Order: sequence, then structure tokens, then C-alpha cells
Amino acid sequence: MRASIIAVGTELLFGQIVNTNAAYLSRELQTLGIDVLYHYTVGDNADRMRDMLRRALEETDLVIASGGLGPTQDDMTKEIIAEVMGARLAPDERALSEIESFFKKIGRDMTDNNRKQAMLPEGAAVFYNARGTAPGFAIASASGGGTVIALPGPPSELVAMFESSVIPYLGERADAAIYHRMLRFYGIGESQLETDLSGLIDGQTDPTFATYAKEGECSLRIASKRRTREEAEAAVEKAERDVLAIAGDYMYSDSDEELSAVTARLLLESGLTLSSAESCTGGLFASALTSYPGISEVFDRGYITYSNEAKSGELGVPASLIESHGAVSEEVAAAMAEGCREAAGTDIGVSVTGVAGPGGGTEAKPVGLAWIAIADADGVAARRLLSRNKGRDVNRRVAVLAMLNMLRKYLVRKGG
Amino acid sequence: MRASIIAVGTELLFGQIVNTNAAYLSRELQTLGIDVLYHYTVGDNADRMRDMLRRALEETDLVIASGGLGPTQDDMTKEIIAEVMGARLAPDERALSEIESFFKKIGRDMTDNNRKQAMLPEGAAVFYNARGTAPGFAIASASGGGTVIALPGPPSELVAMFESSVIPYLGERADAAIYHRMLRFYGIGESQLETDLSGLIDGQTDPTFATYAKEGECSLRIASKRRTREEAEAAVEKAERDVLAIAGDYMYSDSDEELSAVTARLLLESGLTLSSAESCTGGLFASALTSYPGISEVFDRGYITYSNEAKSGELGVPASLIESHGAVSEEVAAAMAEGCREAAGTDIGVSVTGVAGPGGGTEAKPVGLAWIAIADADGVAARRLLSRNKGRDVNRRVAVLAMLNMLRKYLVRKGG
Repeated sequence: MRASIIAVGTELLFGQIVNTNAAYLSRELQTLGIDVLYHYTVGDNADRMRDMLRRALEETDLVIASGGLGPTQDDMTKEIIAEVMGARLAPDERALSEIESFFKKIGRDMTDNNRKQAMLPEGAAVFYNARGTAPGFAIASASGGGTVIALPGPPSELVAMFESSVIPYLGERADAAIYHRMLRFYGIGESQLETDLSGLIDGQTDPTFATYAKEGECSLRIASKRRTREEAEAAVEKAERDVLAIAGDYMYSDSDEELSAVTARLLLESGLTLSSAESCTGGLFASALTSYPGISEVFDRGYITYSNEAKSGELGVPASLIESHGAVSEEVAAAMAEGCREAAGTDIGVSVTGVAGPGGGTEAKPVGLAWIAIADADGVAARRLLSRNKGRDVNRRVAVLAMLNMLRKYLVRKGG
Repeated sequence: MRASIIAVGTELLFGQIVNTNAAYLSRELQTLGIDVLYHYTVGDNADRMRDMLRRALEETDLVIASGGLGPTQDDMTKEIIAEVMGARLAPDERALSEIESFFKKIGRDMTDNNRKQAMLPEGAAVFYNARGTAPGFAIASASGGGTVIALPGPPSELVAMFESSVIPYLGERADAAIYHRMLRFYGIGESQLETDLSGLIDGQTDPTFATYAKEGECSLRIASKRRTREEAEAAVEKAERDVLAIAGDYMYSDSDEELSAVTARLLLESGLTLSSAESCTGGLFASALTSYPGISEVFDRGYITYSNEAKSGELGVPASLIESHGAVSEEVAAAMAEGCREAAGTDIGVSVTGVAGPGGGTEAKPVGLAWIAIADADGVAARRLLSRNKGRDVNRRVAVLAMLNMLRKYLVRKGG
């Protein structure tokens, strides 16, 4: 079964609303084994909507339209669908009474145009709206020309209606199950990953592999479409094992989990306490790590030492060391990691010092250069980063990813 | 001029990515007086992409395609556009050298598939990529059959390229001028703002007013479409003066600037030095403020004091004070602000202590409660926040907005 999604609303074409419904519906349809071939967005214009609906019905078996079911004049989705599917609109008694009771509940008078929302195509399966007034519906063409499902535009109403009514409606019809996993990698580029995996990817039809570049990292989606979910899942797991044999060193999650969450969980499991000393990232490392619930058990404190005085005063980094090597150097990064570990009395200390930009870069120390370090009772290890300068915020985020991954690998080594 | 936007990428049809590019491009095209009639999304499939491009060119004068310009096999947008527009692909020397130098700079070997990115349609206007490796381009049909613009999919690359290259390219061709301003407000809800402005908004056709709810704040878009940009701009400025007379106390930007940037700029202008002490926000305040270039002139250091020991050890908050009032209290917030100011020797100290959740809430101190404080040589002022608990990350971000606004108002008072 193949589907198109049509979002209706001029506000989308003005860019006032981001079309999150298309992404939600696509994910849900995929898990039902339905392929989504197209997303369309059209404004509140009868002719264009009619053309688009006819076209979508020619191209796919299932068309899901969202929006334009409301009470106002520019809401015409229902009328167009009824016209294209050759159905008459008739009042639906339950819909009407639900709309009336809704207005009673919120203590507002029901305006006449709200009655329009209770007019539905004859022969349609009606989806009543638990979150609002506009009902949705599904109507199948008598001549086998496909099925159209209409849903309200507000995401909360659309999601509630999809889960309560559309999934049961479609569940029967799905002819296959899709299972997929998103693997996340750090330290390898998208094109390098694809090159390394080309033996697996090339000419592969099922499971399918798709690489995605993310900021400072990349992902690999492995998807399989089989008769049953069990078969699809088994195929994906086999493929994941093949990928791990090739690129396992770079993978940090096979459940699309953020690097910060993976690292925070490992830290909590280790029971080791941590403190941080940040210069160029200005607290971004600590804020990423502390977004993880319960992290306060192991994260004791952090220092944001922007000025050289702060590096010396808070972390005991000798002013002479900063003078001789510069604030952005292996020596200062190492001293910061050891200094915060000692000052905070934690098992581990992590540090970063770099040139975030846009100013402050030199030939020897360009914008995008950073030194990161990790210290424990046994000593300190530092690493040099040189990210291509994509702007201050990206440089900072990329440095934080490197710190998180350095800590993650340290914890993995300790754990194993 | 009428436009279609085509987003290319199977990940969109899988719902793994929300199509924010379409909304961004729509807003920008509208300000150039170009009407957007359709959004399309198609997967990495040559036949469907070709059909969709041909169709879009029949329906509209301008087609903007985003995505599918990368180095991998499934990136075929450029090849399809060249085929449909009847142009040959030829290597672009500047693009090739930029890609080569990129790989040299990051010290990675350039895989062969990256050369593919430097192949561009002959006769196209090339848009070089300041944020990534894939160049974009614009190609106009010889037979007057419309113009196609291709842009990279990653939003940061697309936005940078649109602003630097596409706006100049399209600027000439627009037939009407739309001018708009986005006003940003803190401390007033969207529905309250709309109610207060109803006298201005109701029945208004030009300029138009649109309110947007944002996390912890809200925005108002004032837009006018006139014959010339000057006329549109004058109409918007008149409307802005009317808005300020009603809701000026809450407005912090009329150029859609982030609260963190507005506050950072005011701090730099004041020349006052700042330090911060954060508990529940874990460095998020400092990282927001330090995302502003050049802030190191005035932001000296920050403390992330998660544990009570850290609050006492780093900031000199008496353990007895924490015992008697609790870590989340007016007294401790005030002591943290004064303590970091003294420890860092800065003009101003800002602090926060709160219950980010999901755990740790009590009847008296529920999740979402936070105390924030600001201290200077004249004393300290603290404020209580109780945000409806929308989850740990939202609670943290909402607390940071309150701290930024408290600092902003302090600086405004000092300034004038």
C-alpha cells in the first residue's frame, strides 16, 4: 500500500507553521507497513486542492489530508474530497451533538458555521474528535480508486484521532511490517561511512541502508520490510551485526540516542564523580550532560573559566603556563582538567579550551581549534580538535561532542 | 512570480526529519513578494523526482529544491535538474578546490564521491557553500520555462546560502515588496497579547498582525505588502509604534533577536563584568550568554554548583543557610549571586537554584520551582519562578530566559 500526505492551509505556504503533521503521519504509516511516496502542501484554494487530490489518488492508494475541516469559509477540504469521491455531504447526528456539547462545556455559544463541521460525506467512516470540534473521516472509492482519510490540522487533534481511530481503520489493510533502527556514529564522516559499508549497501534491497550527516556525527538507518515484524526485526539485527564488524568502533548508539544521554547513563552506571572546566564552550558541556535526569548523583560541579585569571584562580593553572603556551594549548587543557578534578575533589575532571570565533584566530591557532582533556587519579590525557569553522555556535557544539565522546570512551574502557 | 518548494530526501518521507526548510523558504520568498503555491516532498527516487520537477515547472515560474546535493549515491537532485533543464554537468574548479581544501583542513582523505559535488550544470549561477561542501545553484530555462534553484538540505547551510546568494539573485525579479518585522516579547502570553492588541488586529488587512507562541515567550509578526519596500516599511513602522504604546513593557526586540543576544549586547555596552552561579540549569545560562561573540570582554567566569558542598565551597554559601532554608530558596539564591560576585570579583553576579525534575519535587517545592537572583555593589534582588512543569529541559530553558530577562532589565535601568 502506497500513501500520499496532503497538508492543507495557506498558513503553511506563508511559513507561519512548520508541517510537523507530515513527519508524524509518515512515521506512523511506516510502522503500519505503508510506504509514503509524497508529501504535498496546498493553500485554501479549491481548484488547486482538487487538482492535487486527483493527482495524489492517481499516484497512490491512500491519501491522508490534514487541515481545512474547520467551521470557517476557507475550510473546504471536506467539500473537495466529497466532490472528487462523488459523495454527498449529509449531517452526522453524533458529530452534531458532540459539537453542541463541546460548546456547552466551554460555555460558549455555538455559532451557525460550526454546524457545517457535522456535515460529512455519505458512506464515510467517521472519526469523532476527542480534542476539538472537527470530525475526521475515511472514504473509499466505490470504483476501487483509492481511499482518502481527512484529519484535523491541529497536531494534538490529529495525533489523538490517528491513534484512536485511524490505526484501527488501517491496521487491517496493511500488507507488510517495517522495522528499522537508527545507529549513531561519532568520529567518522557520512561519505567515509558509506564507503566503508559499500560492500553491504551496494545493490542491497532488503534491509536497506541510508546514511545521514549530522552536526559533528552521522547516522545509519537500517530498515527492513517483511511479511511480519519479527522477520523484519531479525533481518535488521543481522545487518546491524555486519555493520558493527566494520564500523563498530565509531558507533555509540543503536537506538538513535543522543551522545550526551549515552555518556550520562554510562557515568551514572560507573558511579564515578565528575567535574568540568570549560573555556570556549561556556558551560555547554555541563548543560548537555546535566540535561540527563538524576545526573546530580555523579556530576558535582563545573567551572566556566573564561578569563586567564579564572583559569589560575579557580583551577590553579599557573599564569606562567598560560604565558608560555597560550590559553589554547595542550598544557593548559591538561592543567584545567587536573585542576578542576582537584578543586572539586571528584574522580574525573574534563576540560576544554579553544578558539570559538568569530574573532581571536591566528595562523597557528585558527578559529575552530580546541584542546580537550580528561584527568583521573592515574593521570591526564589531552586531545587536539580542529573543526572546520562553521561559526561560533557550531564550533562550540562540535567541541562538546568531542568531550562527551572522550568521556564515553573513558567510561567504556573503565567498564570493560 | 509564483514558486514551488521541493524538499528531496527519503528521510523526510520516513518522518525522521521535520521539513523546516519549506517554512523558512516560504517566509523568505514572501518577503520578496513571491507567492508560494505548493510544497512538495519526494524521496531519493529519480523517476518521481523528475516527474515532480517537471510538474512544478509547469505550475510555477520558480522552483526551489532543497536536499540531495551531497556526495553519496542517493544524492541525485543535481543530475535530475540538469536533465530536465537540458544542461550538461561539468566540473566547477572553484567548487572542487573548496572541497579539497576542506578535507585538507580537517585532515581527512577526500573520498572520490566528494568530487561529484563539484559537478554543476553548465550555464548555472553557482552558489558556493560557506557552511559545508555541497554548492547550490540557479538555472533558468532557455525556453522561458522557468527557473530552478537547488540548495543543500542541512538548514544551517540552506539558510546561509539563501541569505548570501539567493536573495541577491531573486531580489531583482520580485514584482511587489513585502516588508515585515518580528517583535519579541517576554512576560506576556500569546493570547493575552492578542487580546490587548485586538483593537489593532481585528479587521486589519494591511499591515497584517500574527502572534506566535514560543517557549516562555511570544512573538508578533507585522507584515505589509505594498508597491515598494519603502511604502511597506513605513506602514510596518507606524504599526509598531501603535503596538509599543500598548505592550511596549514586554517587548525586548523588534528584529527577532534572541533574548540571550539582546542581553549580551546590553552587557557589552554597559562594560560591567559578570559572573554566574547555576544549580538546576547546569551551565545553560552561561552557555546561552557566551554564544554571543566577544562576550569574553565582560563575562569573567561561571560556577555550576550542583552539590551543596560546591555551593558552600565555591560561593561561600553557609551550610547552615542551606540546611535551614533548603538549597532551593530565596536565601540561597541570593547568597549564590553575592558569593559568585565576590569570588569572581565582578560587578554583577547572577544565580539560579531550582527543581528541574523529573524527580526531587515536593508539595512545598514542586518541580518547576526556581529562585533567581542578581547582585551588585548595592545589594541583591531575588525572584521566584514557578513554571508549569513541562519536563526537565523546558524547565531549565524557562529558568534561563527569566535570568536573561532579569539581567536585561537591570542593564536597561542602569543604562537609562
